[in-house]
Amino acid sequence: MLDLKDIYKDYKSFLNKDIKISGWIKNHRKQKEFGFIDFNDGTYFKNLQVVYDNKLSSFEEIQKLHIGSAITVKGKLIESQGSQDFEVTATDIILEGDCPDDYPLQSKGRPTREFLREIAYLRPRTNLFNAVFRVRSIAAYAIHKYFQDNGYVYFHAPLITASDCEGAGEMFQVTTLDLNKIAEKGTVDYSKDFFNKQAALTVSGQLQAETFAMAYKKTYTFGPTFRAENSNTKTHASEFWMIEPEIAFCDLDDDMNIMEDMLKYIVKYVLDNCKVEMEFFDKFVEKGLLNKLNKLVTSNFTRIDHKDVITILKKANVKWEFEPEYGSDIAKEHEKYITEYFDGPVFIKNWPKDIKAFYMKQNPDGETVAAVDLEVPGAGELMGGSQREENYEKLVSRMNELKMDKSSLDWYLNLRKFGGCTHSGFGMGFERLLIYLTGVDNIRDVIPYYRTPGNCEY
Amino acid sequence: MLDLKDIYKDYKSFLNKDIKISGWIKNHRKQKEFGFIDFNDGTYFKNLQVVYDNKLSSFEEIQKLHIGSAITVKGKLIESQGSQDFEVTATDIILEGDCPDDYPLQSKGRPTREFLREIAYLRPRTNLFNAVFRVRSIAAYAIHKYFQDNGYVYFHAPLITASDCEGAGEMFQVTTLDLNKIAEKGTVDYSKDFFNKQAALTVSGQLQAETFAMAYKKTYTFGPTFRAENSNTKTHASEFWMIEPEIAFCDLDDDMNIMEDMLKYIVKYVLDNCKVEMEFFDKFVEKGLLNKLNKLVTSNFTRIDHKDVITILKKANVKWEFEPEYGSDIAKEHEKYITEYFDGPVFIKNWPKDIKAFYMKQNPDGETVAAVDLEVPGAGELMGGSQREENYEKLVSRMNELKMDKSSLDWYLNLRKFGGCTHSGFGMGFERLLIYLTGVDNIRDVIPYYRTPGNCEY
Repeated sequence: MLDLKDIYKDYKSFLNKDIKISGWIKNHRKQKEFGFIDFNDGTYFKNLQVVYDNKLSSFEEIQKLHIGSAITVKGKLIESQGSQDFEVTATDIILEGDCPDDYPLQSKGRPTREFLREIAYLRPRTNLFNAVFRVRSIAAYAIHKYFQDNGYVYFHAPLITASDCEGAGEMFQVTTLDLNKIAEKGTVDYSKDFFNKQAALTVSGQLQAETFAMAYKKTYTFGPTFRAENSNTKTHASEFWMIEPEIAFCDLDDDMNIMEDMLKYIVKYVLDNCKVEMEFFDKFVEKGLLNKLNKLVTSNFTRIDHKDVITILKKANVKWEFEPEYGSDIAKEHEKYITEYFDGPVFIKNWPKDIKAFYMKQNPDGETVAAVDLEVPGAGELMGGSQREENYEKLVSRMNELKMDKSSLDWYLNLRKFGGCTHSGFGMGFERLLIYLTGVDNIRDVIPYYRTPGNCEY
Repeated sequence: MLDLKDIYKDYKSFLNKDIKISGWIKNHRKQKEFGFIDFNDGTYFKNLQVVYDNKLSSFEEIQKLHIGSAITVKGKLIESQGSQDFEVTATDIILEGDCPDDYPLQSKGRPTREFLREIAYLRPRTNLFNAVFRVRSIAAYAIHKYFQDNGYVYFHAPLITASDCEGAGEMFQVTTLDLNKIAEKGTVDYSKDFFNKQAALTVSGQLQAETFAMAYKKTYTFGPTFRAENSNTKTHASEFWMIEPEIAFCDLDDDMNIMEDMLKYIVKYVLDNCKVEMEFFDKFVEKGLLNKLNKLVTSNFTRIDHKDVITILKKANVKWEFEPEYGSDIAKEHEKYITEYFDGPVFIKNWPKDIKAFYMKQNPDGETVAAVDLEVPGAGELMGGSQREENYEKLVSRMNELKMDKSSLDWYLNLRKFGGCTHSGFGMGFERLLIYLTGVDNIRDVIPYYRTPGNCEY
């Protein structure tokens, strides 16, 4: 079965040959003696122009075909006089599936992204979303290719879990208990639940990934993750995909090397393999996008301690909304300033321990942990990672300080007993990467069917 | 950082050179003047022999090193007199992380698979599970590579859903309601739940994937799927990964072509890229495995109607436990017989409509649907697919017959209104494939952290 992509790959090999291709009508312009159909089968971003004339016995029927209809076109591929290199002169056009006039995606006007969210099941048929979700697919593959080519083992972290990674994440509970019966009886008995205990959807596969790093040295997850956070920002979704590599015999510097290498690889792969889509984004979504991404691929990423970032921020001649403080997190405005200051991506490392997670490697200063965030121009934080605390006693004492329940994490602690070693990892939200890659700035528009508070359609 | 895999790939380029490599002690044999360490860093299945002698100042300390400890070895790679081609003579061995004597994976004896499930976080360190989860990783990549090379768009189906694909699946409910408060108050109010309505974990991404097929022509999912079924068989898990391709302008014959082509590709890819692991399975897990798989790659898959299968079964000189019947499903024993009868994989097609799903294409006979199951020798059903009903009225009338709620699936029905066309797809359980590929016959042993009734550890 011929794909439009095959023709675009090497149209000359199809020239003056009979072809048969199936797809949809994107636009239809009719004249008395001719008709022009913008045809697309979804395998390539650009349309194919199909020309038909009134010598066809079915001319009048073809003229009635609606936008959105599925058709099969038989004809000859010829060089074109118009703006495109080639077109098809049809010998026959067969209707496969009609599309009525109330089809929401007519060619007139450009529907808003908000409207398209209401008909999310149709939006991949529009140029914008067609490009977004193809880039999503190619970027996902680039990630797998990077890690597989570099000898990592792909680890499927469990989605339903009884261990809570971050200690106090806002999690979705998973249950087969009948809630109406609970209401009726007035008691909850988790021993009757499916797993005989309380279970929830994971917020991170990192802790489990560490078990694989201790067996394979290099591992990565790439799977869905869940947060039941009641936030309605442009960058939060309740269900999103995350990449979490974990590497043994790897310290924070090695970790940053991998983060940098991986990101450059993905960006380059997408630029090389989604040329027309990326040009579309550059033209219609974010002016300068290609420039930004090409620059990233060749830039050196700055590496600087958190405290030195604060010093720079304090010295800056800027009226901050949030005053930068040693020992505190940094705000969006600070992230922006620092990437502009260094004119490129910045690794901020060695963060105050009190604002970071329990598993991070405690530095000798007693104040900081070997954590790192990558800030990129125009998007802020893109990844976060750390060296993990491999010392059993230090890890236990930190968990005690935070009053964490150690019983459900005994296996995690045991990794430090049974041949533990220096190891590090990081996490990257896949949708955050896509926002950065496409310039489409709302997470709802880079996930096929987004879940946010109050939204669970399709 | 040097990986063991690099050395095995081309050991001659490392011969007589100084190397430094970090990993774990798999075994340790001590003699008075020498010691031998079986070293592995997890990047390759086979160990590396490290030899050290009493000329090293740290000889006595090294002799004390335990199995399971993390070490860094410095030394020279030399040709070996023993059974392996090469080994390392150590100039220094540094302990990175100790491992006490109560480490559960000592070299003595072979632990049972049941015991290893109890310490699932350590089992990827054993030969068997190391091989299983590496094959899992490589097979996953083969699947992505197959579809990406063939122009499919990777679609991330939503995991939390308010639409139930199969109509009456046993689903996990997802909620942020406080169950204790429900018990206390005696009422359930879903308008207060996170999504303002009842939500559950998906049992299939197929229906949503169809929306992408109608935009991209060729799409596939590869993601987790959930069933809250209370079954404790060797082939059922509550959380598993599934591949669901969906193709427009594709009928049942085309669908079978793709199923066959994909399966052969994956099997060949794994045979080519996991040679040592597959030899291990062939030797220790399933005698004849390599034969079985090599045969599959070159065999022609039989295609036969369900009713003709029943005729063959009825004629067979076998005392069945379950009598084969026209219009009914077939049992395990029938699957086995029919793959042996045809001495290879068999597509059974055109099934009685009453035992198949609502969305399957109704054949003109009014009795059957254009569904297909692939049966493979030694494993039974490996995939199931169908042409989808593209006729709006027929689909609605089938849903009415089954008393299905159409309101939550209006978008699915609309796909038949807005440029619908002939389309097909199929589903393959990833773990079922792994069981077939490795010969490891329990689903609990091909998933890193399995979830079954009463089991939700790690």
